[in-house]
Amino acid sequence: MSVPQKLYEGKAKIVYTTDDPEILLAHFKDDATAFNAQKRGTIQGKGEINNTISTHLFQRLEAEGVPTHFIETPTANEMRVKRVKIVPIEVIVRNIAAGSLCKQTGIPAGTVLEPTLVEYCYKNDQLGDPLLTRDRLLLLKLATPEQLDEIKALSLKINQVLSEFFEQCGITLVDFKLEFGYTSDGKLVLADEISPDTCRLWNKGETDPNLRVMDKDRFRHDLGNVESAYQQVLERVLAQTQNG
Amino acid sequence: MSVPQKLYEGKAKIVYTTDDPEILLAHFKDDATAFNAQKRGTIQGKGEINNTISTHLFQRLEAEGVPTHFIETPTANEMRVKRVKIVPIEVIVRNIAAGSLCKQTGIPAGTVLEPTLVEYCYKNDQLGDPLLTRDRLLLLKLATPEQLDEIKALSLKINQVLSEFFEQCGITLVDFKLEFGYTSDGKLVLADEISPDTCRLWNKGETDPNLRVMDKDRFRHDLGNVESAYQQVLERVLAQTQNG
Repeated sequence: MSVPQKLYEGKAKIVYTTDDPEILLAHFKDDATAFNAQKRGTIQGKGEINNTISTHLFQRLEAEGVPTHFIETPTANEMRVKRVKIVPIEVIVRNIAAGSLCKQTGIPAGTVLEPTLVEYCYKNDQLGDPLLTRDRLLLLKLATPEQLDEIKALSLKINQVLSEFFEQCGITLVDFKLEFGYTSDGKLVLADEISPDTCRLWNKGETDPNLRVMDKDRFRHDLGNVESAYQQVLERVLAQTQNG
Repeated sequence: MSVPQKLYEGKAKIVYTTDDPEILLAHFKDDATAFNAQKRGTIQGKGEINNTISTHLFQRLEAEGVPTHFIETPTANEMRVKRVKIVPIEVIVRNIAAGSLCKQTGIPAGTVLEPTLVEYCYKNDQLGDPLLTRDRLLLLKLATPEQLDEIKALSLKINQVLSEFFEQCGITLVDFKLEFGYTSDGKLVLADEISPDTCRLWNKGETDPNLRVMDKDRFRHDLGNVESAYQQVLERVLAQTQNG
């Protein structure tokens, strides 16, 4: 047995090597950051909650034919995943206008977006993860046109599966961030995590713009009850997984 | 004769009505602003210089089949133009990487862009003229897909004509901003101005990144000799217009 090496430490996860060069171990942290790490804090229990939610959502996606990096969940805050070469793009899928889209364009928050907007940001902390036009993305050679088409199609498929699942949980999937990677045999798979850290989730039927928020916006905008919102999402995901 | 009414005052121009409802009078100011008007100043003689340069470039473009709003130049700092409904988009045509493109993407300044990059910003001072993806532009209904295609094709044609003309002036056309409008009979025409305020122009063959700048970047970045750079562009445009 070789000793696990810390391969990478990000804002919300630490990734370790394993005995198998094709497999990594992701450790989910309670640390929370926002606004490109200008705001920092801790969300008690977040690591375990996000790992568990991600596990169930990856399994649901796999069952629906979406390839992911997920292998298994050995402990409460750890996930074994396929080692992939990450595409340095953050894909943002938007069903309803919120966050930076509203700030940058003046579109009112809550506007239903039809068709769904699929956007790309350059995964680059130093540059502040800037929005990319298609031409800029291709100029930077972050993906080929064919790869981008595949990423977009897969993102829309993921949106379909997740929107339907969250709907059944009584949650509106407003928008979310995806990251993709290529396995050693060149297959595109969904990577990273899917959790209240990476999705905007609104309690269905709740119209109060502060009360409805069940995601990291509670932390970003100091709305309080961050832990209980994450816990609530977990409970509904678990209940729906058992029912569904 | 009706009294001219001030219709609009922008950063670099004041636009007045005329007796003819289809014709406006643009008065070119010496005022200079940069960084969304956070920096303000005066460039002595700029109004006359930009009006004269724009006049010659609009005439050149018209001769090459590009429709513009230009009618005539009654005085040194005034231009009579067709009244148009401005498309609220700033079109940025980039032959060489510079300015916000480099800042936002990390692409080194001076990188030759092949193919030429045509980008769109939302003409909205309050929002800071943000970069628009094609999808955001269409979502905001700033243009239809067909209008956007026509705007892009015309922008590339303008780039071809201007790049060749400036080349003959010993000037490299690095990038430039265009605005378009629709005349009352629904025709798309080039509007605004074409000048060292709206183009990045580098003295051909000069490799020193400060010495080569012949445009508003001298004002933006306090490079000095702003007036003489504008004057130099004017003189070369006039000489080339007489020769060409």
